[in-house]
Parts: sequence; structure tokens; C-alpha cells
Amino acid sequence: MSEKKSVYKPKSISGYPEWLPEARYVEQQWFDHIRRVFESYGFCNIETPSVEELDVITAKGEVDKEIYVLERLHQEDGEKKESRLALHFDQTVPLARYVAQHFGDLVFPFKRYQMQRVWRGERPQKGRFREFYQCDIDVIGVDQLGLHFDAEMPAIIYEVLSGLQGMENEKFQLRISNRKILIGVMEALEIENPEETLRSLDKMAKITPDGVRAELTGLGLNQNTITSLLTFADQKFEGVGAGLDLHNHITSFNFKNDLMLEGAEELHFVMDQLSHIPDAVADLSIVRGLDYYTGTVYETTFVGNEGYGSICSGGRYDDLASSYINKKLPGVGISIGFSRLFAYMLEQGKLPLTRKSPADILMALPPVRSDESLNDIKNKENEIRKRAQETAQILRKNNYKVEMFHMPQKIGKQIAYAEKKGIPYVWFPPFDEDGKHEVKNMAAQTQTETTPENWKPKTQPETQKGQINDAA
Amino acid sequence: MSEKKSVYKPKSISGYPEWLPEARYVEQQWFDHIRRVFESYGFCNIETPSVEELDVITAKGEVDKEIYVLERLHQEDGEKKESRLALHFDQTVPLARYVAQHFGDLVFPFKRYQMQRVWRGERPQKGRFREFYQCDIDVIGVDQLGLHFDAEMPAIIYEVLSGLQGMENEKFQLRISNRKILIGVMEALEIENPEETLRSLDKMAKITPDGVRAELTGLGLNQNTITSLLTFADQKFEGVGAGLDLHNHITSFNFKNDLMLEGAEELHFVMDQLSHIPDAVADLSIVRGLDYYTGTVYETTFVGNEGYGSICSGGRYDDLASSYINKKLPGVGISIGFSRLFAYMLEQGKLPLTRKSPADILMALPPVRSDESLNDIKNKENEIRKRAQETAQILRKNNYKVEMFHMPQKIGKQIAYAEKKGIPYVWFPPFDEDGKHEVKNMAAQTQTETTPENWKPKTQPETQKGQINDAA
Repeated sequence: MSEKKSVYKPKSISGYPEWLPEARYVEQQWFDHIRRVFESYGFCNIETPSVEELDVITAKGEVDKEIYVLERLHQEDGEKKESRLALHFDQTVPLARYVAQHFGDLVFPFKRYQMQRVWRGERPQKGRFREFYQCDIDVIGVDQLGLHFDAEMPAIIYEVLSGLQGMENEKFQLRISNRKILIGVMEALEIENPEETLRSLDKMAKITPDGVRAELTGLGLNQNTITSLLTFADQKFEGVGAGLDLHNHITSFNFKNDLMLEGAEELHFVMDQLSHIPDAVADLSIVRGLDYYTGTVYETTFVGNEGYGSICSGGRYDDLASSYINKKLPGVGISIGFSRLFAYMLEQGKLPLTRKSPADILMALPPVRSDESLNDIKNKENEIRKRAQETAQILRKNNYKVEMFHMPQKIGKQIAYAEKKGIPYVWFPPFDEDGKHEVKNMAAQTQTETTPENWKPKTQPETQKGQINDAA
Repeated sequence: MSEKKSVYKPKSISGYPEWLPEARYVEQQWFDHIRRVFESYGFCNIETPSVEELDVITAKGEVDKEIYVLERLHQEDGEKKESRLALHFDQTVPLARYVAQHFGDLVFPFKRYQMQRVWRGERPQKGRFREFYQCDIDVIGVDQLGLHFDAEMPAIIYEVLSGLQGMENEKFQLRISNRKILIGVMEALEIENPEETLRSLDKMAKITPDGVRAELTGLGLNQNTITSLLTFADQKFEGVGAGLDLHNHITSFNFKNDLMLEGAEELHFVMDQLSHIPDAVADLSIVRGLDYYTGTVYETTFVGNEGYGSICSGGRYDDLASSYINKKLPGVGISIGFSRLFAYMLEQGKLPLTRKSPADILMALPPVRSDESLNDIKNKENEIRKRAQETAQILRKNNYKVEMFHMPQKIGKQIAYAEKKGIPYVWFPPFDEDGKHEVKNMAAQTQTETTPENWKPKTQPETQKGQINDAA
């Protein structure tokens, strides 16, 4: 033991999450699963640098308060002044820049997924981090992009969310609308402040229709108009007939216009495509705050905990990268608020935090009897370690993950170590050259004779779940 | 088409690499392979935040010029002053902080791998980035840590490097030494400026023994001492007898001391354990610049391109986290300069850049005859798309990755699209209800009848290589 000295006790940095190995293990399974689903629909992966030029980041001008810029701690005097760099706060701004910059090298429709950290300097609070992962998919077309992609997005998200480890019993709703509908309605109703009105309607799930009514009254809308709007927008349609029900609801109103009907037809088509997904709901109150959505919009909330906000959102936009390129690039995308969702499930105690090690097998090192001479013990130990290592290599070749125990110790201690790390099997290599191999199943508490060449676990070890499978 | 307008043409940021999808595809295979090897030896994964408090980052005081600090673009007036945050420049400083902070929750020996981006603000140059990935493994013990871990590191790295896609024909050397040896020699030779001498010896591969002699002469060492040092240090031992050869070389000198002999014994043991790895070489000139190594040191260079520098380095340290915790935590670790290596192989044109999409299969949409009525065409198209989608879902369930073609078009165009994206198979769902499925192998240019339930590709699609396999 070293002597006592004064030490600086490190602490967590607020808003920057960090997990223990057993939570990170589950997080990796989540990423693997998400990647597998995204790729199974043909999305390719890209990564962009963590930074963009500040001018690129602030082009939209809406979130500059939250942006982190980089400074070199010791900028040299007389050094050429470089462009200021800022950490990206989402993956859409970098995507726009990427697509414009590499336009000639990409094949369109460009289907890409991206799973990176993003940074927002806002004050940390429950469920809000300053550094967090997002998992995005977007499809970008040139000039046009088929509407069936708008239906593919929620189908993929449904497959992702319902297959995440620990999410098996969570009820969530994929809420879908089309901005053209409400914008058209507001035009038809001749509402003077459509933006504030939309922002208010968007809070329906959070503040209830009564809350929305109060806000709209405050905006100066007359009560008849508010009643019409609420009757229109506070509506959900789900299940097999959702598309048609929605169509009938919308056409039953005596205020209508072309934009609204166009949006209704699009949403009808999308809902028809999603009739096999029980959790997909057409919800006419959904708007999404950000300006750039122009058609379909998505939001995903926990059923019974809508107040937690959306864990997965997105929509269609007319033109991704108009500030960078003289091409019209319509797109549709959706983003999983990964860290937000993961932290929520972790906090609720719903994740299986049993694996402190990815190893399937702990290779035990049988202890040598201590009544032999020191040199004999050393030789014997080396021999045993060599045999254990050879055994481990055979098992690794068969795709098992094997941790070698670190020193010859009492078998009980080695088993306790496997228990503590959550390693499901302990392997005992032969003590002598003609000895037998045995393997202990930690869960079943059974021990059986076997060989490293032929061993197969009776049940799949947990490590297999949620990992990339072979295609064949 | 949109009309012409003035646009800001985005460009790359110097020192921040970004890849096209087909290069990122290979990069993902690399990460998968590295992860699989690391985990197969029982290393668990952790991630730390991208930032640490500036005080933590600069504790060692050696690289502050390269550090990026974060500033919020619009810090609010009167806001509580927060600790300054800096992006980490390696993964060892964060590991030390992590181990100290979570000491009670970790199981020791703590075997962890970490594959994250790190940042260094230095002037970008060939092979040097400002943002890049490192892949590290370290084992941390409490009070003590067995020497066999020092031999496990290069064995793992050998398995990693020799299995990377595109690296099949690269010759590289894992060069191993033990700092105790040269430090002991310098003590025995009573050299007055051991640090400068070490730094000079460390350049043997780069500046040749003659260059080292010139530098040491400049330091004021006498020629006999220099000759002794060079005769001693300019030595490599490889192959089955390396450990013993090394032992004989070292003990043949008439200057020796305990530290040197201790180091020699350790290196002898490590080399004996590595006798099955042809590319592992004991190289007594290896030192590694950084101060904190206290025993075994590693470096990895391309054979014939030693001047490119080390692509994978590390070593043993006595005490990881002494500034944070009153525990002695010896460790040994090694770090792959991932982005450096990947960029080098990419630049050399040695990576297979054929896959712009991860999809195994492009699901074609047979075009409807255009002599039917518009409504009939639409209905027929919907029917075909539905059948194609159902077929795609069956194939996805069987773990194939399937991209749906985006619109009914001439078959030739759809095949050209698969070609352009590097998708190895094109699937033709039946045109009518009782029609047959056919699949085209793009490489072999053959087309065969099949069913989605039973189809297996004759050769494994390329997507399978380098991905996480099932354990069973």
C-alpha cells in the first residue's frame, strides 16, 4: 500500500453522462441493435467531424446560445488566424454540409444513418444533457423523393424501439401528422398569427386542450375559431382504418383548402402503409417546433408519460442544403434521442446490469499444491498457464470470448470473480496432460466434462443478443 | 430544378478527417474487428465524456499547447462561473480519472478497451490529425499486476493488425523493450544526462546509429561510453529463441546492475510468451518518450517504412492514478493510432472501397406496362410494392440487409443503381400473385429462381466479414 497523500477527488461533470461497464455493455447492445435495423433497410453510415465552422453551425441562427466554440489553450502569437470552430448541436446541419460538399460522390436517393455525440451548452436538467448521442436516419433525393419513405421512417423506428433490451414492456406511440394540414386549416380560418398558434397547438399533449384554449384566447383568437381548431386538431386515428377515418374527419369540415387536402392525402397514404404497426397513430396536433419541416412530422412519446417529451422526432423537409448548393434536395428523416432514452431506462432500473465483462467464459488456473519446491511450483504453474492459454485460443477461434484468470488462486476465489464480473461460464483446463476439461454453468450451477473443440453452451450466452449477426 | 442562387461552397476543415460512405464502411469493419478481438480476451468497453475539467487534463503539464478548451458562444451575464472544460487529448488521462472516481464499483484487474475520438490542437500535417480515433486496451491492478499481461498486449495487437481488412500484405513489427534495462545501463555507465540520452537512443530507427552517435557526442558523452551504449542498445531479437538470446546478450556485458537485470528478466519472460508471434521483436533501443512508463514498452512500425513512426504504442506504468486516489494502481496498456493507420491505408489505395451501401440485396420494383389506365397503373404499382415489401421483410428476418428500390423504373436502371452502390444481389419479386422470385448475382452475372424463405447466397456476402459473430 502506498502512504496517505493528499489527492484530488474527481467528480462527474454536470450534463456529461458516463456509465459503469455494466451499463455501457447494454448501451453497446442498443447501438448494435439500432445499427442492425438501420442497415437492414439499406442505410449506409457516415460520420462527420465533431466540429463545423461557426458560420455553418449558426447559419440557421436559432440556437446560438447553446453552441460551444473551441479555443486553443495556448494560441501562438503571430499564428495565422483560423476560422472559428464549433461543436455540432445536431446531425442535420452537418448532413446538409456533407451532402453539398460531396454531392458528386454520393448516389441518390442517399440513405444514411449517423450515431454520434452532439453538444448543447444549455443548463443541464433532468433528461437534458450537454453531450449526448443521437441516432439519425435520413433519405435525401434530388428534385423529388417518394412519399413511401415517409412511411418507412416510423416502420423502422417501431422495429428499433420495440427491440431494444429492457424496452420490452414499454408502451410508446409513434405520433404522425402532416404540417400542410394545420397550416392549410389556419389559412382557411384566416388566423393572423399562425406561428404562435401552431406552437400552442403543439403543446396539446403537455398542457391539455384546455391549456391550449387559454393560450389561444391570449393570442386574441375568437372562441368559435378556437373551438373549430381544437375540434379539428385534438384527434387521433389508429389501427387498420386510420387512414380512411382521418380522411373522413378532415373532409367533414366545412373549412378547407388545397394545402390542407394535399396534406390530408399524404397522411392518408402514410397511415395506410403503416396499418400493420399498432403503435403508429395519426395525431393532428403534432407540429414540431423547428421551421424547416414542410410535410410529414413525427413524434414519439411514452404512453402514460407523455410529459417526458418526445424520444424520437423528425419529418420531411423540402430542401436540405439550399444555402450550399444549387440543387433542390428534399428529404425525410427521424432522430432518436438516444442518451435521453437510455438514461431514462437506466434510471427506471429497467436495464439488465449484470455484465461487467463481455467474456462468455472465465478460464480458471488450477492452483499448484504448495508443498512442492518453489521452482517446481513455478514450472508447474507455467505449464498450466500454457495449457489454459491454448484452450482459450481454441475457444476464441470458435468465437467465444474468454478471459484468462490472472493468477493461480483457490478455485473458490476464481468462481467468485466470475460471479462478480457476470461471466456465465467458468472453464477448468486439465491439471495434467491427460486430464479432462470441465466447464461450470454459473446460472445452473452445473459442471460437466467437455472439450474446447466441441463445446456449445446449452443456452445462448447473453452476449449474443443484440449483436450484429451474420447475413447468412 | 431550383433557380441559380449564390451559395456558400463548404470545404473540409484541416485536420478533421471525414470519409465517403464506402470508406466509412471499411472503417466500421475495422472497428468491429478490433472490438471482437479485444472482447475475445475479456476486455470490457467504457466511454468517457469528450471533456474533462481543465485541471484534470493539464495535471501532467506536458501538452498544454495542444489542448482545446470549450467556450459557450453566449455565456449569460451573471451566470455562475463553471469549471473550464477541455477536450481530452488521449484516453489515459480520462481512464485514470474514471478508475479513481468509480474505484468501488469496478472489479480488478480492470480490463477495459476504449475507442473514442481525441483532440489535439497542433498544426495538422501528413498523418497528424486534430481529431482522431484511438483504440486503447489497458489492464489495471490493485497493488500488483502479473507480468503475463505485458505479454498479452502484443499478442492481442498482432491479432488485431493482421486481421484488418486491407492489411493482409503489410509487414509490421511489434518492437518490445523494458525501460529498466536502459535506465540500469545508464546508471551502470554513470551517464550524467540520462533523459537526453534516452531521448536520443529512442530515435535509433529514425536517424540510424550514426545519427544517435552524433547526438550523444553533442551531449558530451565520451566515445567509449557511446560505443558501449550503441553496441548494447542497437540490438534486436526475434523468433523462438529470442528470450534466451536477449538474456545472453545482456549478461555478456561487464557493466550491469540490479535494475538492468530485473528488466532483462522481465523482457525475457515476455519474449518467451510471445515465441509463437513471428512479428514480435525485442528491440533494446525502444524507450517511448512519455515519462510514465516504468517497465515494458511497445512500439509498432511498418517494415520498410519505419520513418512513418509508430502506429501502436504503449507500456507498463507503476501507478495510474496517484493524484486521485490513495491506492497503488499498476497497469499496462497499448493504444492503436486508429485514424493515422486507417488514413495511411486509405491513401495507399489498399482498402476495398466497393460498398456505398451495406445492403446485401436491392429489392427491384418491376415496372407496370404503361398502356394501362393511370388508375390501374397506380393500383398495380401499389400491389407490386406491397409484395416487394413483404419479400424484403422475410429476408430481413433472415438477417439479410435489403434496400427497396425507390420507384418503378426500367429494370436496367435498377440494376445500374445496384452496381453503383455496390449491392451484390438484385431481387425480383413476382409480378403476379403466382409468379416466381428471381435473384441476380451481380458479380457472377447469373440469375436464378428462388424463394425469400430459403435463399442463401452461394458465397458469403462481403458484409459479413469483420462483423461481430454469434458466440455460439
